[in-house]
Amino acid sequence: MWCRRSIRRTPLTHHGLISNPNCSTIVALVAVNAIHRLSPIRSMVVSTYQAVSGAGAGGPPELAEEIAAAAEGREALPKVFPYPIAYNLIPAIGEFQTNGYTAEEMKMQNEGRKILHAPELLVNCTCVRVPVIRSPFDFSFARHRAAAFPRRGAGEAVAAAPGCRLTDDPGAKVYPMPLDTSDQDLVYVGRIRRDLTNGKGISLFCCGDQIRKGAATNAVQIAELLL
Amino acid sequence: MWCRRSIRRTPLTHHGLISNPNCSTIVALVAVNAIHRLSPIRSMVVSTYQAVSGAGAGGPPELAEEIAAAAEGREALPKVFPYPIAYNLIPAIGEFQTNGYTAEEMKMQNEGRKILHAPELLVNCTCVRVPVIRSPFDFSFARHRAAAFPRRGAGEAVAAAPGCRLTDDPGAKVYPMPLDTSDQDLVYVGRIRRDLTNGKGISLFCCGDQIRKGAATNAVQIAELLL
Repeated sequence: MWCRRSIRRTPLTHHGLISNPNCSTIVALVAVNAIHRLSPIRSMVVSTYQAVSGAGAGGPPELAEEIAAAAEGREALPKVFPYPIAYNLIPAIGEFQTNGYTAEEMKMQNEGRKILHAPELLVNCTCVRVPVIRSPFDFSFARHRAAAFPRRGAGEAVAAAPGCRLTDDPGAKVYPMPLDTSDQDLVYVGRIRRDLTNGKGISLFCCGDQIRKGAATNAVQIAELLL
Repeated sequence: MWCRRSIRRTPLTHHGLISNPNCSTIVALVAVNAIHRLSPIRSMVVSTYQAVSGAGAGGPPELAEEIAAAAEGREALPKVFPYPIAYNLIPAIGEFQTNGYTAEEMKMQNEGRKILHAPELLVNCTCVRVPVIRSPFDFSFARHRAAAFPRRGAGEAVAAAPGCRLTDDPGAKVYPMPLDTSDQDLVYVGRIRRDLTNGKGISLFCCGDQIRKGAATNAVQIAELLL
């Protein structure tokens, strides 16, 4: 992490360990940061749609085996996940904390505060495992401190942000999907629209490969900054 | 619908058509209503995880064909959905409106206002198709008008509400899942917890079979009230 309390540290001035952030967190925050720079974000509500590969190398074969077993009418006992994930959704990723949120869910707030340099950021996150192989998918709903800004401004900020690709033309069926973002480095951002519950809010969807941008690509990008 | 403007109508005093609500809407609102009665809800942020059978009889065979095609290394052209749904997520259900939301997303607010008798309810909804056969899954985050009430109170209200089953013991891996709720009538509700971004908010997950409670069961229940 590059920030501790109010001191901003960059990789070049950092003298300790530099950790790579949580995969869903970094994918969401790459998208949200572009808008945060326009207008500081006060709070977010995030729902994730997390791929099975986020659980490690054992996730995709477990999904494949369960799908094959279902087709053949036999049972496949889950090992990596607590329940079968084929044709199912599991709303529990990480250990549960005393506040009812999982460790994975709290990362969006804890790491988000450091990554966005926003120590007072509040995040209500819900993490759900879905039967998709790669590319987690985040829905973010952000409330800003400042007055509302035009939706087009948010789109332009995303389009200009490094690491982001604006895929936001719903009428032409253009929106982020795991099908398009798997095995590449960019975070796709779309469905940008005004929050209907509060004039200071913006909603968006983002999707990125958690093995690339969520882990390997991000580590390489940190190393590139250092070198 | 049973309510028009401020006039509360029940099936017994209604003299017009009684329509059956949208499937995702009724599943979410059966759960939310139990809490709404304790403390009126002012606004909600809802993310859906909608099953392929919600698109009609053609949805499940299309998913099955795409999964089989992927296993055999051949291509299957989507017909029911705009893109392949196997191992994918599609953040677009229904026609897009000029405000950037789809018709399906607006139903959560439009029908929710009538069903909850809350004409000023504000809802920010995002509908996503997921590769699951039955039982849509809704994450709801609700802000209340009144002060916060104990989390346990929300759970007790859900447990006592007709049509709901409280499945909320995350430490024992008890939470709602499509695997458990398919082909039965109850809406399972769990992951009830305080909103971390606002003391007046409650978050919850609910899951119910959209063919049963989302359509057939609900129609029968309306008819039973009339008879």
